[in-house]
Amino acid sequence: MCELLGMSANVPTDICFSFAGLMRRGGQTGPHADGWGIAFYEDKGCRSFHDPHPSARSEVAQFVRRHPIKSRIVISHIRRANRGRMALENTHPFQRELWGRPWSFAHNGQLKGVKRWRLGAFAPIGTTDSEHAFCWLLEQLRQRFPAPPKARALAAAVEALARRLATLGVFNMLLSDGRSLYCHCSTKLAWLTRRAPFGPATLVDEDLTVNFEQETTPEDVVTVVATRPLTRDEAWTVMEPGRTVVFRDGEPVPLPRRRASPPVRDMAA
Amino acid sequence: MCELLGMSANVPTDICFSFAGLMRRGGQTGPHADGWGIAFYEDKGCRSFHDPHPSARSEVAQFVRRHPIKSRIVISHIRRANRGRMALENTHPFQRELWGRPWSFAHNGQLKGVKRWRLGAFAPIGTTDSEHAFCWLLEQLRQRFPAPPKARALAAAVEALARRLATLGVFNMLLSDGRSLYCHCSTKLAWLTRRAPFGPATLVDEDLTVNFEQETTPEDVVTVVATRPLTRDEAWTVMEPGRTVVFRDGEPVPLPRRRASPPVRDMAA
Repeated sequence: MCELLGMSANVPTDICFSFAGLMRRGGQTGPHADGWGIAFYEDKGCRSFHDPHPSARSEVAQFVRRHPIKSRIVISHIRRANRGRMALENTHPFQRELWGRPWSFAHNGQLKGVKRWRLGAFAPIGTTDSEHAFCWLLEQLRQRFPAPPKARALAAAVEALARRLATLGVFNMLLSDGRSLYCHCSTKLAWLTRRAPFGPATLVDEDLTVNFEQETTPEDVVTVVATRPLTRDEAWTVMEPGRTVVFRDGEPVPLPRRRASPPVRDMAA
Repeated sequence: MCELLGMSANVPTDICFSFAGLMRRGGQTGPHADGWGIAFYEDKGCRSFHDPHPSARSEVAQFVRRHPIKSRIVISHIRRANRGRMALENTHPFQRELWGRPWSFAHNGQLKGVKRWRLGAFAPIGTTDSEHAFCWLLEQLRQRFPAPPKARALAAAVEALARRLATLGVFNMLLSDGRSLYCHCSTKLAWLTRRAPFGPATLVDEDLTVNFEQETTPEDVVTVVATRPLTRDEAWTVMEPGRTVVFRDGEPVPLPRRRASPPVRDMAA
């Protein structure tokens, strides 16, 4: 099982505190010793750091932890390999461009048989089922929407595609196009929104406390999403299995009411 | 004018020495103060570091300079913005996936009117003429070769496409699919191959000497490509304008004899 970490905020925010907790799970407090990665969205661009080595001993991870990169959307992943060998090309988050937007995707779980699902314009570089699922998902969006649709229609389509993928096994997912953060919970995902009045928070995995009041302004809204709650003194919402939540500017976006059958064409071979 | 740096080697090699020289040109010995980026190929994967801030003062650049990331192909770029604002999404090298390979592209020069050239499956995320040219080039390859062709056919196609792009202005280019390093010289590009017997080399831009004999084995072959020679005591080959050179495992690959008319379909609007 891998660990996911996501962030959606209404102002550029650094994720050093949550990242510190996540990185400890990469080979120290957790068994996820097979590499890690993080993607930061900054305006229309996205930059990412990947390392096929354990995050707890990674020099790149130390660098990211020490240098506050301010971002409104972040996706991070630490990996315990169960499909695909330990290698840079198998390290999440995966990235592709669609409609001139940089998409990032991180997944925890396994998807039995997904590699038989037919792809189109996007091909995996590595050998994970996760990257195959990402390529399939983007191809479905590309076929359905030649141009980028409205945010609500896109959210509904992503939700339907996530549900289809989840039928193959375990599919906890973080996905972003730089505007929204799409989160699908198949078995394990929790989130927390911090807003005024801010207080202190203490990491579960490390004896580290931060007082967000000193770090924020009263208008800041910051949502953190993680496989398991990262702090022990805040009220996390544990997501129900089968649910998709979409965040924009730190706030959950209402999804259109789900139709009986998924509106997305079946492309499985 | 931007500065390009590329490397092709037959063994994973760190580029710290050459990178040290290049980074000084980003705002210290050179005027290229508008961001920089570097892509390292490691096996089938590729990781990159981008920073929209001047390289000479960039903490990410300091990190890359100090931590030897070993790679067989590297592409780096420091930017002086002349098209597209200073922003992460406008920072080279640009990256896209084609045929399940991660392609990277860095360009120095301007291409007048390239944004009128019609695109297909790849769309720019930022606003530079360079990224538009890259998307056009990959779309041409994708249309011509539904599956990856043999190395020689691919090299010939890239050469023809580079020549077409160069008709629009100045097009000094470094491009890679993780197997070959494609270099096109429109006005300025030079290269140097280091092989046994290795000797010392001294940077033009910084009082730094390295003795490669202590860093290498007798079998190592390492080619470095740069806008201007980076060292003052080695014999660089200055490329002729209009020439393409392709390197694989540090060695130049012979290109098929050029045909009278470029074999690539004209997709210009």
